[in-house]
Amino acid sequence: MVYFDNAATSYPKPKIVYDKIMEAMTEYGANPGRSGHKKALAISRGIFETRVQLSKLFNIKDPLNIIFTLNCTEALNTAIKGVLKPGDHVITTSMEHNSVLRPIVFLEKLGVEHTIVQGDSKGRINPKDIENSIRPNTKLIATTHISNLTGTIMDIEAIGKIAKKHNILYLVDGAQSAGVYDIDVNSMNIDMLAFPGHKGLLGPQGTGGLYIREGLDLTEIFQGGTGSVSHSLTQPDVLPDKFESGTPNGPGIVGLGAGVKYIMEIGIDNIRKKEEELTKHFIEEALKIEGIKLYGPLEIGLHAPVVALNIKDADSSEISYILDEEYDIAVRPGLHCAPLAHKTIGTFEQGVVRFSFGYENTHEEIEFAVKALKEIAREV
Amino acid sequence: MVYFDNAATSYPKPKIVYDKIMEAMTEYGANPGRSGHKKALAISRGIFETRVQLSKLFNIKDPLNIIFTLNCTEALNTAIKGVLKPGDHVITTSMEHNSVLRPIVFLEKLGVEHTIVQGDSKGRINPKDIENSIRPNTKLIATTHISNLTGTIMDIEAIGKIAKKHNILYLVDGAQSAGVYDIDVNSMNIDMLAFPGHKGLLGPQGTGGLYIREGLDLTEIFQGGTGSVSHSLTQPDVLPDKFESGTPNGPGIVGLGAGVKYIMEIGIDNIRKKEEELTKHFIEEALKIEGIKLYGPLEIGLHAPVVALNIKDADSSEISYILDEEYDIAVRPGLHCAPLAHKTIGTFEQGVVRFSFGYENTHEEIEFAVKALKEIAREV
Repeated sequence: MVYFDNAATSYPKPKIVYDKIMEAMTEYGANPGRSGHKKALAISRGIFETRVQLSKLFNIKDPLNIIFTLNCTEALNTAIKGVLKPGDHVITTSMEHNSVLRPIVFLEKLGVEHTIVQGDSKGRINPKDIENSIRPNTKLIATTHISNLTGTIMDIEAIGKIAKKHNILYLVDGAQSAGVYDIDVNSMNIDMLAFPGHKGLLGPQGTGGLYIREGLDLTEIFQGGTGSVSHSLTQPDVLPDKFESGTPNGPGIVGLGAGVKYIMEIGIDNIRKKEEELTKHFIEEALKIEGIKLYGPLEIGLHAPVVALNIKDADSSEISYILDEEYDIAVRPGLHCAPLAHKTIGTFEQGVVRFSFGYENTHEEIEFAVKALKEIAREV
Repeated sequence: MVYFDNAATSYPKPKIVYDKIMEAMTEYGANPGRSGHKKALAISRGIFETRVQLSKLFNIKDPLNIIFTLNCTEALNTAIKGVLKPGDHVITTSMEHNSVLRPIVFLEKLGVEHTIVQGDSKGRINPKDIENSIRPNTKLIATTHISNLTGTIMDIEAIGKIAKKHNILYLVDGAQSAGVYDIDVNSMNIDMLAFPGHKGLLGPQGTGGLYIREGLDLTEIFQGGTGSVSHSLTQPDVLPDKFESGTPNGPGIVGLGAGVKYIMEIGIDNIRKKEEELTKHFIEEALKIEGIKLYGPLEIGLHAPVVALNIKDADSSEISYILDEEYDIAVRPGLHCAPLAHKTIGTFEQGVVRFSFGYENTHEEIEFAVKALKEIAREV
């Protein structure tokens, strides 16, 4: 199978990731805790090591400012609901995933106002439009780094500057960028960074996390056992414990650490370069095919390895089905949990066929997909 | 190492569990979704199969009434916060884990009242005390099935009857019982059952779940992408999607399914019988050692494979440290995230040394531990 669904979950992972997960499960698959026996200490160390790796990757000073969650959606909810209180205002964009939009719309009932800044037909957000949406009660700006639909790269540095200038918190959804594009929480003025473990960071499913800037006081979503201040019936205030109740996904987090280490060994620039070359190759060839519509900026540097397309007016699910059944090519059709982004680029009815590339893909696979698209375009 | 920390996480898992996780990760580690390519369908089927296995185990009619979470703590929070609204009253017990107590205490700020029914010195809860605590605004009764401190088995059947009689919802924390003790949500009148995947159910860390009775309307904690009704900015109402936002821990859930299947192949009665024999063996021998105090009912049928003890007035952490360092025996000292349970049995200052047994343990290991305790008791 040719796997072009890396924007959902990267696959396959580097072998070391599978090996480290298995090692953690079979050799020290115990519960981490403040004190404890050898296996408990081993898994605690493994989890901490992942925090350290991620801190290096994102230029985070204190590894304990990273909390682990089930996935990026939980991290985004934790950030959004931890910060926003009734009477606050939040600015987001039409290019967001439902993991940002739905929590914000949910909070409307609780008296949290929002503005959704509209992207253009290529999915681009003008930072000026964000600045113009600021109100006296604006508490948070929440934007994605890269659209999961069009691959459009947002100017998070510019948005971070605006947030800082107006003393507003900035939450970045790194779902499509973490592990492939540079993210520096300091220089980019990012107060909170949500990331999945199982996409660009090359870890397993069941992992994700949130960076919370030192000193930021968020209300936690869950309370429970934290292995700390166990005598107390109230949640401890210290990070990461405050946000990590119950048994974490120890082996998964260890696997995530192996993924991040692998990225740093290869070099994030080399990974991005390869993925950009694959993307460029695909876009150039796809543009030549009659009847194919491509979306997004289509220019490397502005467009990440996520390419949305349609063939004439054919339903995106039908095209994806043919790609899977007849060519064994895995892509993702439909709305990609980003309804407003589809409205923004005019594909709300048709959906799109999304190709998303990863470091493991090859130019031969790109050529094979292009050939398949040519054949399908002739027949549809 | 002799591993007696199964109440935290069972270890090791059956080999088939590791194998199935690895197979899922390496062969079809994609994202599940309503539609999609072969790998997406394969992981969807794998996850559904786990729901089916769990439904059989707990006598749940519709597998879609089970939702998956990161761990039991998230499941308990989902149940408690999904049901309770300002002005409601909830009854719980002094034998609960912080994963029940802390969310309930947190809700106090939002105007949710609670009563904590006191256990006796053996950690037993009298169902009558629960019934006597019912108020006109009592919405929920939340109790554990088995104390994670004393191993005391609660009469959840009697409590379920009381809840039903008074038309009050009943939430059972199955953290220490699921996979070892019979749980029938129908005959026991359980409206919600929270369970960890990584303890008695023999799945990996990073898995847990909640059964929600058909027709029960809970508010969800997270909103996000669900792969369903993607055109809408509000969370779908259908189970399990409403409570499963973002990418689930696919391979972990597949591993959990393998664990449950393994349990049903061996027979839950056979598993319990073996664990009870180990527990009986340990209690009988430990009772003979001078200077050792044991807690809980100490009678099979009333006492699960979780045994709390102390040696004279020695700090529980010190004893656990010696067991680990000198004998390579893994146990858990301290407060076990159950402060009120420790107050109930009078060990809030000293903590206890907790031995928790699993199906993989042997009578030889029990004898080795007894020998170690004898030696330590002589020296302390």
